[in-house]
Amino acid sequence: MKKLINDPQRVVDDTVRGFALAHADRVVLTESPIHLRRSDAPVPGKVGIVSGGGSGHEPLHAGFIGHGMLDAAVPGPVFTSPTPDPIVEATKAVDAGAGVLHIVKNYTGDVLNFETAAELAGMDGIRIESVVVDDDVAVQDSLYTAGRRGVAGTVVVEKCAGAAAERGDDLDAVAGVARRVNAVTRSMGLALAPCTVPHAGEPSFTLAEDEVELGIGIHGEPGREKIAMAPADQLTDRVIEPILADLSPSEGARVLLFVNGMGGTPLSELYIVYRRAAEVLAERGLQVARSLVGNYVTSLEMQGFSITLSVLDDDLLALWDAPVETPALRWGR
Amino acid sequence: MKKLINDPQRVVDDTVRGFALAHADRVVLTESPIHLRRSDAPVPGKVGIVSGGGSGHEPLHAGFIGHGMLDAAVPGPVFTSPTPDPIVEATKAVDAGAGVLHIVKNYTGDVLNFETAAELAGMDGIRIESVVVDDDVAVQDSLYTAGRRGVAGTVVVEKCAGAAAERGDDLDAVAGVARRVNAVTRSMGLALAPCTVPHAGEPSFTLAEDEVELGIGIHGEPGREKIAMAPADQLTDRVIEPILADLSPSEGARVLLFVNGMGGTPLSELYIVYRRAAEVLAERGLQVARSLVGNYVTSLEMQGFSITLSVLDDDLLALWDAPVETPALRWGR
Repeated sequence: MKKLINDPQRVVDDTVRGFALAHADRVVLTESPIHLRRSDAPVPGKVGIVSGGGSGHEPLHAGFIGHGMLDAAVPGPVFTSPTPDPIVEATKAVDAGAGVLHIVKNYTGDVLNFETAAELAGMDGIRIESVVVDDDVAVQDSLYTAGRRGVAGTVVVEKCAGAAAERGDDLDAVAGVARRVNAVTRSMGLALAPCTVPHAGEPSFTLAEDEVELGIGIHGEPGREKIAMAPADQLTDRVIEPILADLSPSEGARVLLFVNGMGGTPLSELYIVYRRAAEVLAERGLQVARSLVGNYVTSLEMQGFSITLSVLDDDLLALWDAPVETPALRWGR
Repeated sequence: MKKLINDPQRVVDDTVRGFALAHADRVVLTESPIHLRRSDAPVPGKVGIVSGGGSGHEPLHAGFIGHGMLDAAVPGPVFTSPTPDPIVEATKAVDAGAGVLHIVKNYTGDVLNFETAAELAGMDGIRIESVVVDDDVAVQDSLYTAGRRGVAGTVVVEKCAGAAAERGDDLDAVAGVARRVNAVTRSMGLALAPCTVPHAGEPSFTLAEDEVELGIGIHGEPGREKIAMAPADQLTDRVIEPILADLSPSEGARVLLFVNGMGGTPLSELYIVYRRAAEVLAERGLQVARSLVGNYVTSLEMQGFSITLSVLDDDLLALWDAPVETPALRWGR
């Protein structure tokens, strides 16, 4: 294992300290219990949005803290849910009286700990809504999940819900946006090479030189099957077809095409995947209305990609386009 | 070799097609001879800025096309300079009559081909200035270079020169800004694991499990020496010390601290490096005025990082902060 770390037990601490230093203009780190929040939170009148989960998926979630997206993020240990305590503290820190939305990826530990945190924060009089993201079409259940896993679609949920909160939607409406995005969002991934969890020290799975893992999870958990290595266009087809079959968008629908890197794959290769994915969508009579290409929901240094498709109506398009100012996603209009 | 490609000979074509599709709102691709330009170029009255070089360093250079940065980028084959012909075409395409600046990384092939292109475009009556970036303190000469290599500092040169052109500086002034940034910018890199050039099919160098390459070039060319693998803080010290020794900033100077990933290194590890680098700068009485952390000048899937320091005066700070709208770097004020 060759990593730019000091100590497998200090990986998350060192990462968030560096992150908070680099983005001191917009993010504040609390070290105990560990959570990060917008430096201007709580924002008066605005619904707060908190997300979190195991570390190792950077820039998710802390990279999405800022105007138009998250108010706070709670990083757990690598690939391990945070406990309820920091989630409660993050929730309190960002509540401006308008309530707080929890955006939770569908893993058993995350769901349980966010539920407990919501109950505890509720006892303090904070109104909480929770939305569970489960966009991965690869498997119905998995090592860490009952039901579908939450993967890169989480970025789309956090972006649109964040924009809704910023425009002044109330808690029910913001939660409604998050659920609506989740309902029209599907993802699937593929790995060429595994990652190594620092405190484990060994690759999380093995692949022969001539095979790839189709439907990989973002913790290296198994997907649908190992298939033969093939040209990028064929691999792209193997990933996008199950997404389209599950999503079944109507002809002419406007979609967001999001090609996400798993952490160790060059940007150039993601654009090669994007090219074929856009071609497939055009062949199906779909309109690629918006695009996102890059490393947003990663799995340490895993090599591979995922594709996420979201069907965007006028309202979701406006929310996607709304200004966002976070370390990892920034644009104005 | 396991890569998301269709054919080693089609890597650049497939990449730029995907890139142009994903960013069709701001970038136009010409396939023969291959170059990319701002969709609104030439911008009336503005000095045009063209950069380029071998592919494999994405998002450099095409990712920096847009308002406030480049007008055009010319991608060569992987790790190989583009020929003069596409550089001439790109130069003509973005000239609005105010002249064109060429920003060239200091590699023998790039310097030669940009020189030839400048002569040819000059015969068509276009005023050209050329600035060669040579920020790498690792080695004086190298496999591909007479003098120092141009590496990640190129991003800072392109950003500040782009902002100067956007505010209306004339050609001499824009070139002056580029030279001034280059003069106050130093970089050095380190690799944990090599990359594989698609058409070569073999890793460009080898490293034992317990060693790293200090002073690596962005084409995998050798650096200063192979040193023992060590904790991230120690490796960071080994990279930042020679930069500081060479740059010798005065006490209290304001610096941009740019931690760049080589392509295959997780963002979390770059923040671990950033944390220690910021600590070292504080110990030296320097002020980290601006920060940039991420994969901007890569070397395919190489694992490793580089650090770039630029001393910023008031004018350069204002140019760095000026709005930029490109696929890879975006912010407004």
